[in-house]
Amino acid sequence: MNQQLELLLKATLDAWYSHVSRTDHLLSSLTDEQLQQEVAPGRNTGIYLLGHLTAVHDRLLPLLGFESQLYPHLDAFITSPDKAIKDIPPAADLRLHWKEVNDKLAKHFSGLTPDGWFQKHTAVSDEDFIKEPHRNRLSVLISRTHHLSYHLGQLIFLKK
Amino acid sequence: MNQQLELLLKATLDAWYSHVSRTDHLLSSLTDEQLQQEVAPGRNTGIYLLGHLTAVHDRLLPLLGFESQLYPHLDAFITSPDKAIKDIPPAADLRLHWKEVNDKLAKHFSGLTPDGWFQKHTAVSDEDFIKEPHRNRLSVLISRTHHLSYHLGQLIFLKK
Repeated sequence: MNQQLELLLKATLDAWYSHVSRTDHLLSSLTDEQLQQEVAPGRNTGIYLLGHLTAVHDRLLPLLGFESQLYPHLDAFITSPDKAIKDIPPAADLRLHWKEVNDKLAKHFSGLTPDGWFQKHTAVSDEDFIKEPHRNRLSVLISRTHHLSYHLGQLIFLKK
Repeated sequence: MNQQLELLLKATLDAWYSHVSRTDHLLSSLTDEQLQQEVAPGRNTGIYLLGHLTAVHDRLLPLLGFESQLYPHLDAFITSPDKAIKDIPPAADLRLHWKEVNDKLAKHFSGLTPDGWFQKHTAVSDEDFIKEPHRNRLSVLISRTHHLSYHLGQLIFLKK
């Protein structure tokens, strides 16, 4: 493979893994009680953001064509705002799901060839992909890494 | 150029431009008074984050080997925490500098060849770069895009 492509592909994946790892690190430093707090007055709670991030990452499994999502019941964390969710799972469950989903993704990522990263994601049709080859797995990964980074900047406010 | 490399390079640059644009959009929706507020109780003010982001982007000019930084006096927004800065420039000045710095970067970016993106940044020596070719301009850009995304997630709290 082209060395430049290899370098940029690695940098892109490294950004994903380093943000997941920074989030893991932050979460492990927060108590369940801290997670119940709003990150800022009137804003999302830590537990909502954890559910949201877990659900968004879980949905990468089908979106990237790997397998079905593991926890469809977490979709409420995408479709509903914080205070509208009736049954928020215990923090311990969400912490576990967060880890499981990211581990599962890492397993699939490690099995993907470079060419595989440039294949289309499942929300784009074969016809559209011919005209829009940028709608590949990597573009989804890049977008989700920024999504994580954005919310990580909010979750950090739970730290005293 | 390899089509995959071209796609990934474009996706990486697009992420930068889209985050700068999202930040512009947010800033234009905030009044100077709103920028004076803390994004969350006891946290950085909007004006500090604007100064911080402007300074970090300004320093990309020398770091990426383009030219000297435009506003060295803004370095205080990197080296000092919010409340330690004595002379915070007016919001109007910072808004202008933010725009100028990003426009200047965009001008340099547009003149860079794909190979140019894979050249070393100026904080790495020639010898180290041989062993560590990932320390190129692109890796800096990726890191700064995430940095912007992280703080954008905080600045959004200034919106009512």
